Amino acid sequence: MNRLAIRAAIHVAAVFAMYLSAAMLIPAAIDLHYRSGDWQVFAFSALIMGGAATAVMLATRGSKPQPNTRFGFLLVNLLWLTLAVAGAVPFMMSSLELSFTDALFESVSGVTTTGSTVISGLDNAPPGIIMWRSLLSFMGGLGVIALGLFLLPFLNIGGVSYFRIESSDIADRPFERFQTFALSLIGIYTALVTICALCYNASGMPGFHAINHAMSTVATGGFSTHDTSFLRYANNPAILWTSSIFMLIGGLPFSVMILFAVRGRYDAIRDPQIRVYVGYSIAFALMVAIYLRATRDISFFDALTHSTFNLISIITTTGYSSDDYLLWGPFAVTCIYVATFLGGCSGSTTGGIKAYRFLILFQLMGNGIRRLIYPNMVQAVRYGDRTIDPDMQRAVVLFISLFFVLWAIITILLGATGMDFLSATSGALASLTNVGPGLSAQIGPVGNYSDIPDAAKWICSAAMLLGRLEILSVLVIFSPVFWRA
Amino acid sequence: MNRLAIRAAIHVAAVFAMYLSAAMLIPAAIDLHYRSGDWQVFAFSALIMGGAATAVMLATRGSKPQPNTRFGFLLVNLLWLTLAVAGAVPFMMSSLELSFTDALFESVSGVTTTGSTVISGLDNAPPGIIMWRSLLSFMGGLGVIALGLFLLPFLNIGGVSYFRIESSDIADRPFERFQTFALSLIGIYTALVTICALCYNASGMPGFHAINHAMSTVATGGFSTHDTSFLRYANNPAILWTSSIFMLIGGLPFSVMILFAVRGRYDAIRDPQIRVYVGYSIAFALMVAIYLRATRDISFFDALTHSTFNLISIITTTGYSSDDYLLWGPFAVTCIYVATFLGGCSGSTTGGIKAYRFLILFQLMGNGIRRLIYPNMVQAVRYGDRTIDPDMQRAVVLFISLFFVLWAIITILLGATGMDFLSATSGALASLTNVGPGLSAQIGPVGNYSDIPDAAKWICSAAMLLGRLEILSVLVIFSPVFWRA
Repeated sequence: MNRLAIRAAIHVAAVFAMYLSAAMLIPAAIDLHYRSGDWQVFAFSALIMGGAATAVMLATRGSKPQPNTRFGFLLVNLLWLTLAVAGAVPFMMSSLELSFTDALFESVSGVTTTGSTVISGLDNAPPGIIMWRSLLSFMGGLGVIALGLFLLPFLNIGGVSYFRIESSDIADRPFERFQTFALSLIGIYTALVTICALCYNASGMPGFHAINHAMSTVATGGFSTHDTSFLRYANNPAILWTSSIFMLIGGLPFSVMILFAVRGRYDAIRDPQIRVYVGYSIAFALMVAIYLRATRDISFFDALTHSTFNLISIITTTGYSSDDYLLWGPFAVTCIYVATFLGGCSGSTTGGIKAYRFLILFQLMGNGIRRLIYPNMVQAVRYGDRTIDPDMQRAVVLFISLFFVLWAIITILLGATGMDFLSATSGALASLTNVGPGLSAQIGPVGNYSDIPDAAKWICSAAMLLGRLEILSVLVIFSPVFWRA
Repeated sequence: MNRLAIRAAIHVAAVFAMYLSAAMLIPAAIDLHYRSGDWQVFAFSALIMGGAATAVMLATRGSKPQPNTRFGFLLVNLLWLTLAVAGAVPFMMSSLELSFTDALFESVSGVTTTGSTVISGLDNAPPGIIMWRSLLSFMGGLGVIALGLFLLPFLNIGGVSYFRIESSDIADRPFERFQTFALSLIGIYTALVTICALCYNASGMPGFHAINHAMSTVATGGFSTHDTSFLRYANNPAILWTSSIFMLIGGLPFSVMILFAVRGRYDAIRDPQIRVYVGYSIAFALMVAIYLRATRDISFFDALTHSTFNLISIITTTGYSSDDYLLWGPFAVTCIYVATFLGGCSGSTTGGIKAYRFLILFQLMGNGIRRLIYPNMVQAVRYGDRTIDPDMQRAVVLFISLFFVLWAIITILLGATGMDFLSATSGALASLTNVGPGLSAQIGPVGNYSDIPDAAKWICSAAMLLGRLEILSVLVIFSPVFWRA
């Protein structure tokens, strides 16, 4: 890694920060509209951020991005850190007066689309701050899709990208293609948020809440405008089903949606990860619905509404809740626990292990068992009508191994800060998968992260970033090989 | 799999059952010695078992074991099932009057050296039953070492066996070699138990308890003669340190001890898994000792005694406890939780993931991260001065993946029986790793498994067997390929 590359990465991050400072004018306008004094916070933040970013940009001008993997990894980490730090500024300066730790936690939670919060009193918070949180989720979601579509596959990390495989698309006028795809992505993503907001509103959610929730729903973020998340809408099935559907859509591969919309490629929908993802979502929702119907005095429709909403919320790593599901009984809680690991599709806004990895892992397991009988059996790992090469197989297994090792380490670290065992282990898991709520009363569906120790907030922030950047993109930065000239 | 092979496997199991029925005469003699009426139970069990075994043996005589892997897998499963079922008979017929479910659970727990118990009132139980439990642990421990030394490596499952690698040992008069090794194993194992019993006795433990505990200590089984495990010896550091040392020895590779004793091969001690295993045992014991000293009003020696005893008990998958460590504070509990996964060395009596797998896994992780930067880098995985071939690497990763998938499935199944979340997930883990105690009050260090639902006892029994036979040896039986002609 040479100084030129670092300089170039900082330059790109500075340009990015300028756009971010412009984005701060949106909540400023919202606050002005609602006559909240906090508009000055955002105007001031935009000014500082914009000024600093411009200075850095000018200081590093003339440096060119380098077309190699190391530059890619460095840039990814730097962009997310920039987004996280820039996102924290308004939280510190606003009337909420969050500490730097709290502000950074909230911002990281937003840009990683985790949705954990340290703010109590959301219902009375300035509208600009609420909008800023939603915007962070929105941008984080868009960013992670772009990452999964355009960058990670080329860095040899997870992600079954159609763009990599269909290399003809890129070889033939690459920049034009990329531009088309990028614009399509932004178009589709924004359209989904708009439709979702309209549906929320039509179902009875007030306009401001509808817009904010829509941004956080499609981004599978999980930030709510209420302290009690969706408990307030527990008796409004239309809102819960709207939310379930758009969370589910947020977990689909945007590559498929783009091919669908831009190229009319209807066959793209046959992407096998979609079947797996939709399959286990339905299976978990149904299992818990039947259990709820059997153990509680409610109609099957109510049971299905709530189990679908909360299970899809967990599987898509959103983290909304319509009830304190920790009281649903042991079977439901164990299902929710296991659902925390799952995640959606590659090239979506979800975190977790993700459907395509399970698809590959289970084939590897079957092959491994058969190889015990026939040691020389040649067995392919298939993904749809393609064969997965050994590099990709190794990447899947590497990710899953690192996931569990990191989970264990983060659990111990959180325990060391004094968090009780259940909070520590489920908080570590919920941060690493970008789900949000854990399985203890403190950080569970009706709790929040405001009372965990400061050290724990830093650890969770790191875990959220690790999870969001698919672990490997972060760890590689800490490898000595990375910094070798 | 042909009928001849099945017949031959049943024949071997029947011969084995005959030996087992002879073993039942030991507790019968003990009961006679202590004038307990239960001696008739064992005499009767021996008679039934011996009769049935002889009948089966005669019916299947003339069939020859087949030298292929499928026969090996079938035999391993059959032998452990025979041991488990035969072990259960005296529990059902004794004055304890256990149900078939309870009796089988207790027996499986013994022969898998897990050490979970469903019996309350151990302190007043007939001495023969106590001895029978210890014998099951003793035989289970010996069996699993033999499995790890002589069979699993040839079935391409885990286990870094010196016997496989040093093929000259086997090529040159194989049967004589095997016999020498088998006799050495039995000699060393029995000697360790004897010395352990003498040390316990010298430290103040009454003779009968010393012998029983010694069998269960070296086998890293965890069956105690008291309902409260080692809490009764909490103020006797000599007993706790004796136990810690012999549990630690039980987690060492017996292959190394044999090479050491039989061949004077002092270099065998350089087996890298020993360093890793002893390393993390000391690290965890020290971490928790420092934490206990810092948070409680006890001397460092007391803190170290109890943390060493309980942590080594968990790491070696024994499951003794000298205190209710769930009350030791969050950091200690998270350490104990993570320790549950670790295990000892291959070719030992311990369960869990085991040190050599971590050794290989961490190298694979490092290699995987470096490969992100240099995709064509050729990197070996080393084990001491040997290179681990890709088949072995795959087997390690396969085991770990299956471990976590099974853990998730068993957690959901236990949740479905009505066990609370913490009992379900920690019980699933403690069964699959053959540790024993879980992390909830019900099945924790001062609890037991007597009050969990019957269905949960069956699920835990299956999990213990899966864990004991390194998962793959059991799952392969359920693969369609296995039964193909």
